[in-house]
Amino acid sequence: METVAIVGVGLIGGSFALGLRQAGFTGRILGVSSPRTLQEALERGVIDEALPLDRAAARADLIYLSLPISRILDTLPEIDSSARPRALVTDVGSTKSRIVERAAQTIHRARFLGGHPMAGKETRGVVSADPELFRNRTYFLTPRDPADLDSEPARTLVGWIRKLGALPVPVSAEEHDRIVAYSSHLPQLASTALAAALAEQPDAERIQQAAGPGLLGSTRLALSSYDIWGDILSTNPVHIDDALVRYIEELNGIRKALSSPDLRRQFQIASDFARKLRQRLD
Amino acid sequence: METVAIVGVGLIGGSFALGLRQAGFTGRILGVSSPRTLQEALERGVIDEALPLDRAAARADLIYLSLPISRILDTLPEIDSSARPRALVTDVGSTKSRIVERAAQTIHRARFLGGHPMAGKETRGVVSADPELFRNRTYFLTPRDPADLDSEPARTLVGWIRKLGALPVPVSAEEHDRIVAYSSHLPQLASTALAAALAEQPDAERIQQAAGPGLLGSTRLALSSYDIWGDILSTNPVHIDDALVRYIEELNGIRKALSSPDLRRQFQIASDFARKLRQRLD
Repeated sequence: METVAIVGVGLIGGSFALGLRQAGFTGRILGVSSPRTLQEALERGVIDEALPLDRAAARADLIYLSLPISRILDTLPEIDSSARPRALVTDVGSTKSRIVERAAQTIHRARFLGGHPMAGKETRGVVSADPELFRNRTYFLTPRDPADLDSEPARTLVGWIRKLGALPVPVSAEEHDRIVAYSSHLPQLASTALAAALAEQPDAERIQQAAGPGLLGSTRLALSSYDIWGDILSTNPVHIDDALVRYIEELNGIRKALSSPDLRRQFQIASDFARKLRQRLD
Repeated sequence: METVAIVGVGLIGGSFALGLRQAGFTGRILGVSSPRTLQEALERGVIDEALPLDRAAARADLIYLSLPISRILDTLPEIDSSARPRALVTDVGSTKSRIVERAAQTIHRARFLGGHPMAGKETRGVVSADPELFRNRTYFLTPRDPADLDSEPARTLVGWIRKLGALPVPVSAEEHDRIVAYSSHLPQLASTALAAALAEQPDAERIQQAAGPGLLGSTRLALSSYDIWGDILSTNPVHIDDALVRYIEELNGIRKALSSPDLRRQFQIASDFARKLRQRLD
């Protein structure tokens, strides 16, 4: 792998580029983004050269699509005609089925391997890029066929992901979308629904007055913008609906058990799970 | 107010005692608690003297019941026979209707004024007591009759609450229990239900692997123990059930709008509310 094109030089794309450098990548890093972002990325040494998509795609061994989902879907059909044969196209979209399907329809000369690094920050943009962003995080890869992981460019990508400190985990796109419906999309909607339900109470002002650190934590995700989430929700509606149904069942179970000691069991299951999460991530 | 009896010298009772001292209280602080806690509280200078309940009640102008709800309910009937006429009994229980009702049945010689400081910490016990715990926090007071706040001992208590840096807010016990059902009990159950729903998935292990900081925040309350929450839930079931029903309605509304741009409005309402909370508390 001698040349990498980062398409979308934001937090994730910029962090991948910085991570590559820190891990010893000595090839060329091309950037495709808005003029302002490109200038910032050049000044910060995140990329070596700014180019339009077709010219970057024509030179790259790895094309790294670090864009919002809808822009990944729009960009995929534009790549194949410029890309080098056997170049690897990968992406970082938060849902995978629609993207993997679109890639199967549009990427023929090049190869495609979907990805999703479970990494993020509260701040965005190339100014927040961090070579350590992926460290100790799961990096999902979603081959259409498990054999896709055996190609030489795929093995090279997996090698770099490891060198960035991340844990590559292969799953099908379908399985990925089911997992993140629970691990990410449901927590987001649970927080948004909580904040909205409180905001819509006639005494919302009093409720705010009564808030403590618990409510602050529970409404942190509710700060997220629909500009990011609209894409995610509309490309994973079936699994998200399943997760919401399951969550509502759990809440109805709690309603039934409110004055009963049976609720102790739910608290125990929940606190065991929350503790395990912390052992893994803290 | 010359003598205060702290009944239950834990995080809240200990912090109230330390706060009084820091705010210039020069009277005597008596402690009623387990032998081990009393020794710790004496060593740390949180209390001046350790006594059994009846002897502390007999000497105090203010009897501060900082105990779990069920122990407040059990202790109230034991106080009146020892308490001085016109002494003020107050409590810090997280739900108020049952306590205020029990106090009306059992406190006759003394007076009673229910309270609930919206303050806490992740750690418990007198070792975590902090004179600053109440600063900038709402301190609900729940008089049966608004005139209860006009008695001299009640005005003295309100004065000290202000000197501790807290904001005294009078509400009826009923209103209090409705507010905290939304501000505190619903967020707790939303987090417990989320963690339990995830724990019960067949691929719970993979879901943990995919977890990021968002899920960590959303499951922080799920770490809470039923030992504390059992009392709260069983003494406020009606309002909590209302809040759960409202929350489930909101989640069902989100389900219907999953692939529709109508969801933008819910995200906006939620993020506005979450931002306002932070302006108040951060």
